[in-house]
Amino acid sequence: MIPHVTIREVSLRDGLQIEAPIPLSAKLDLLDAVLATGVREIEVTAFVSPSKVPALADAAELAAELPRLRDAHDVEFSALVAGPGGAARAIAAGLTSLEYVVSAADGHSQANVGRSTSDSTHLIADIARIAHEGGATIEVIIATAWDCPFDGPTDPARVLDIASAAVEVGADRIAIADTIGTTTPGRVTRLVEALRPIVADLPLGAHFHDTRGAGLASAWAAVTAGVTRLDASVGGLGGCPFAPGASGNIATEDLVYLLRDSDVHTDLDLEAAIHAAGVARSVVGHDLPSALLRAGDRILG
Amino acid sequence: MIPHVTIREVSLRDGLQIEAPIPLSAKLDLLDAVLATGVREIEVTAFVSPSKVPALADAAELAAELPRLRDAHDVEFSALVAGPGGAARAIAAGLTSLEYVVSAADGHSQANVGRSTSDSTHLIADIARIAHEGGATIEVIIATAWDCPFDGPTDPARVLDIASAAVEVGADRIAIADTIGTTTPGRVTRLVEALRPIVADLPLGAHFHDTRGAGLASAWAAVTAGVTRLDASVGGLGGCPFAPGASGNIATEDLVYLLRDSDVHTDLDLEAAIHAAGVARSVVGHDLPSALLRAGDRILG
Repeated sequence: MIPHVTIREVSLRDGLQIEAPIPLSAKLDLLDAVLATGVREIEVTAFVSPSKVPALADAAELAAELPRLRDAHDVEFSALVAGPGGAARAIAAGLTSLEYVVSAADGHSQANVGRSTSDSTHLIADIARIAHEGGATIEVIIATAWDCPFDGPTDPARVLDIASAAVEVGADRIAIADTIGTTTPGRVTRLVEALRPIVADLPLGAHFHDTRGAGLASAWAAVTAGVTRLDASVGGLGGCPFAPGASGNIATEDLVYLLRDSDVHTDLDLEAAIHAAGVARSVVGHDLPSALLRAGDRILG
Repeated sequence: MIPHVTIREVSLRDGLQIEAPIPLSAKLDLLDAVLATGVREIEVTAFVSPSKVPALADAAELAAELPRLRDAHDVEFSALVAGPGGAARAIAAGLTSLEYVVSAADGHSQANVGRSTSDSTHLIADIARIAHEGGATIEVIIATAWDCPFDGPTDPARVLDIASAAVEVGADRIAIADTIGTTTPGRVTRLVEALRPIVADLPLGAHFHDTRGAGLASAWAAVTAGVTRLDASVGGLGGCPFAPGASGNIATEDLVYLLRDSDVHTDLDLEAAIHAAGVARSVVGHDLPSALLRAGDRILG
């Protein structure tokens, strides 16, 4: 059994990107609540087109707040980028950890970034160079790793090819994302097992949505198959504006509960995570799918 | 990997027991929709105190409808009983498959049936005799197998002791129930592994609630650990009136989706299960937690 899983909190980016824009001060309130959980990695924003994702248009302003928070907490902040321009802007804003998304399905890739999978894959080398020259690490996230809302099921070979290309040009980490929340434990196990020889010693992460109820089951299958990094969002906040039918990320507090009681360590405090989920609900002003926010922790022995 | 899991549909019993009573005709509408899924086992009611569970007070009337349905479908109907009196009434009503619940925690046992765990365990022999003399099978369901809403965590030794006693006196099947929806994959795996040498060749089932988001993950862990029978309820209908905080059963359609795509066979058709979930929502007149009822099936390759 895996003794430790690194949770990356993505509520500030994947959680908020589909929401109506909220003030920077509200984001900082959410960030404070998230930091209080003890989480060590937080994806805080994306350096992408402000017209396509207005909720994250304040990326540079938010980035300016990070140094004081990094000094006060043992945490790594990261940002998503969609191309070399965004990578350069993220570096200029002081980010030291970048994520670059490549959609394994052409349909989603075109809808998301207006490029084919092949063109996005070819950009990995440039983005990795920009990151490394700027003193940052680069993770390649392979989106629509199981299904695409436009193209249907993704041929696993397309995922393996992107992972191979990413490893080849020096990516620091690889992750696979169930962008529209369709995958299930059996499919997760098979894809992780196929990826392991390719990623070899690089950290392998996974990103699930709970659209069809199988998000946490898929996360558990990923962990038992060797994934050591999972994305999650307090409250289960989030979706994808360019993937019809996508709904909330797996909720951080539900994942922490599941892993804690399964003897898998995270760095997060469950009560603080439930509190952060409440803050997330407040800042977006609507109910969230989190189970623990309703039910609370069990009576512990 | 397990090639086949038997799903027992429990919406008519565990699903409806906490609801305001609905007419028999509405139950038959739900039963028709459930039968159309192809499911082979359906828990249709409970022979318990009508004053404690008014929603199931029509158990004998419902049982009178079963012979014509059994003739038309390849299905086994079962009923829950709480003691020898209920077992005798179920046999008299023509049931050929009974379930008897023993709560592993004294707190829940007293709240549920007004007896200690030990007293309930001692009754297994009587109830098995009544069942077998009446030509029926008897399953012993061990409730609060992980946690009790009153006593906190359940010592696994209490679960193993009940299972041993049940096997000893001729129970036909054993099941473990997460009555209040607190368990998680790691705990499921450990308990199933501890039970396997005790139940030996008897079928072992599990019953999960999704109160803390981990119901399907726990079901998947149970299947990978060797459980071959899972309870589920269309729409995720259900709770337990005597277990504060319990919420819906795992949804049949969400489970069928997860297992189908994980190459585990069930006898159920997913579209028919989603339709039955819609019928369940109509007959109870409120929203249900099912994910598939909202999101639908994925685009298949």
